[in-house]
Amino acid sequence: MSFQDLWSSLLPLGRDERTGGYHRFSWTPADEACRAWFTKAAAERGLRTQADHNGNLWAWWDTPTSPSPGAVVTGSHLDSVPGGGAFDGALGVASAFAAVDTLRERGCTPVRPLAIAAFCEEEGARFGVACLGSRLAVGTIDPQTARALRDASGASLAQVMASAGHDPALIGPDEELLSRVSAYVELHIEQGRGLVDLGAQVGVAEGIWPHGRWRLTFTGRADHAGTAVLADRRDPMLPAAAAVLAAREVARAQQALATVGKLSTEPGAANAVASRVTVWLDARAPDGTALQTLAAEILSATHAAAQEHGVDLDVSQESVTPAVVFDAGLRESVTACLAARGVRAPALPTGAGHDAGVFAARVPTAMIFVRNPTGVSHSPAEYADMADCEAGVAALAAVLEDLACW
Amino acid sequence: MSFQDLWSSLLPLGRDERTGGYHRFSWTPADEACRAWFTKAAAERGLRTQADHNGNLWAWWDTPTSPSPGAVVTGSHLDSVPGGGAFDGALGVASAFAAVDTLRERGCTPVRPLAIAAFCEEEGARFGVACLGSRLAVGTIDPQTARALRDASGASLAQVMASAGHDPALIGPDEELLSRVSAYVELHIEQGRGLVDLGAQVGVAEGIWPHGRWRLTFTGRADHAGTAVLADRRDPMLPAAAAVLAAREVARAQQALATVGKLSTEPGAANAVASRVTVWLDARAPDGTALQTLAAEILSATHAAAQEHGVDLDVSQESVTPAVVFDAGLRESVTACLAARGVRAPALPTGAGHDAGVFAARVPTAMIFVRNPTGVSHSPAEYADMADCEAGVAALAAVLEDLACW
Repeated sequence: MSFQDLWSSLLPLGRDERTGGYHRFSWTPADEACRAWFTKAAAERGLRTQADHNGNLWAWWDTPTSPSPGAVVTGSHLDSVPGGGAFDGALGVASAFAAVDTLRERGCTPVRPLAIAAFCEEEGARFGVACLGSRLAVGTIDPQTARALRDASGASLAQVMASAGHDPALIGPDEELLSRVSAYVELHIEQGRGLVDLGAQVGVAEGIWPHGRWRLTFTGRADHAGTAVLADRRDPMLPAAAAVLAAREVARAQQALATVGKLSTEPGAANAVASRVTVWLDARAPDGTALQTLAAEILSATHAAAQEHGVDLDVSQESVTPAVVFDAGLRESVTACLAARGVRAPALPTGAGHDAGVFAARVPTAMIFVRNPTGVSHSPAEYADMADCEAGVAALAAVLEDLACW
Repeated sequence: MSFQDLWSSLLPLGRDERTGGYHRFSWTPADEACRAWFTKAAAERGLRTQADHNGNLWAWWDTPTSPSPGAVVTGSHLDSVPGGGAFDGALGVASAFAAVDTLRERGCTPVRPLAIAAFCEEEGARFGVACLGSRLAVGTIDPQTARALRDASGASLAQVMASAGHDPALIGPDEELLSRVSAYVELHIEQGRGLVDLGAQVGVAEGIWPHGRWRLTFTGRADHAGTAVLADRRDPMLPAAAAVLAAREVARAQQALATVGKLSTEPGAANAVASRVTVWLDARAPDGTALQTLAAEILSATHAAAQEHGVDLDVSQESVTPAVVFDAGLRESVTACLAARGVRAPALPTGAGHDAGVFAARVPTAMIFVRNPTGVSHSPAEYADMADCEAGVAALAAVLEDLACW
């Protein structure tokens, strides 16, 4: 099966035909359709599919002696942000199956087990914690905490997994599985324009900026918009707006990134002063100290604005992901493998979190990026040229061959 | 039945027991429960209930010669803003039934038909147009436009009314009904602290400030919060926040009112730059010219912010309500009637819209306000002392007696 055919079979799943955006949230019907697609793609290639204790999917190309240590793993995730693009995550999983096809065509047979993984809830779009599936697997989130996470409708992860037939009591670190993995290589569409500027189809990740997410809850007092005197109001919308502008201004000054992409108002009536406004702040910076400085300055401006308007402010850090520097040895192997085949794959950093960043804490990990001509991601406009995707498949196949077949 | 008993029977309907706030949106089960309460209260008093073409409820105390012109109407509305208080609207309807009890106890019999009305969708909380039921009745909104209004779930008014058993083809001006009305007197909780400052239990409205509602749609481009360079972004959240702050600042400078109580983000992901942000602007000022100046300055600042961030801005005026000056003759009659009974009822203006303001365009109209000790409204914290409510019933009964029984 050509990469294009494989890719085309995944494209319709979870797509909003009106906007072209994807809504593939974990444990929803769209997600189930993606999981069925994964299982079918694995079966067509004679791979053994397994859902681990955390619901992550694995398609194993076993060796005669497997299960054995030293497995080489590739893959990514199939879930999306609300209204996301087709490539984020899905490209890595589809490219992994296509790379297996390439290895088969070349007659390569792994001497170590080779697996394709699809991790749950990488985007955190349903339960608010990014890379939830990989975090559970490596033990960087407590199972009890995870089970209690709730989606927007109030359903807990435990309830949702149980409904999908997965026992939520079993979630948590999977040491048996981790002990079998010798390397994880994730292919992903680049989410910036680094490779465009470098004139390369593919690149190798150096590391990931540290990343924090905060929930800012502003509590004021509901009031009638037509009668409450301005000076009497405790309007939480005003410091919330100040936080949005402070985030941008401080990030610009510090050459970092800060974003408010989600804001909710209660009760949310056009003719009433809000009683409560919730703002989600996403902040990233080149290193941990820079991230602390960034967040401190934004939060300080926000606290001052809340105080000025008589509004209570509760700040809760929803997640923090330290900086990741990918394994130097594996990065060098990947770069050398590609260079030996005449493929220029420059190194580049990224501000985006990935399951690879989570796995890097436990196993040698590397990432291959595929060029994104516009740099746009988390958007229906996200796009990659098919020729660049095919270059990505070829690069991944070469790396898997070097790591698993010799 | 005492006012307190009558009031207590209405209190549980549509109340969120967690917050104490009311969610009585038109044509929902909570609204149906309120309508059933109205019908029962009318039946207990031997009044004839009628739903007009627009779904507004009327309870008629007919005279032997009715239907005849010259009817005296009182009432208000039973719907609420999301998370609203118990008194806004409901107090006027309950007080009307209690005033009928008072007239009966005194042995007063109307010589003109007397009606209690409950108008639909006064808050505009479901379909976005305030005073929808009274506007339809007097013809200040086109029926075709009204039928096409949609709620947040996408259901049109026409669909919703049809589901509730009301033929949406019949909505529109009700000249036969209007021709029968000689006066409309609405009792309402005050939504500010005017009567507190004046030391009075009840007051008489002078007029209503003009009021406009605008929907500002900022369209930028969704992007990855961790990778999109700040300078490349077209983030609609930034000019939306600027609009929130400009509204407050300009209103303060012009001694008017401007509020953003509702803001929505799409796609609404914590780790993605929003593609679209919608802001609802509510603005009120002492007169029409002042309102125009207020809106123009806020929108000018907002357009500049949108341009600065490369974001498209669409401004749509959702509603505009001109200033209302209540009928001088009827106001004087009401004030004189109360003064004759030793009730001091000072005159005061308001920024809040009311069905009375809509009716004022067609029939002599007056309003009685009941003291609100905190001034808070559109909030679960909205409150009135029972003694003040009972003073309101007594005042309304006196006015109805003067208007309908002599």
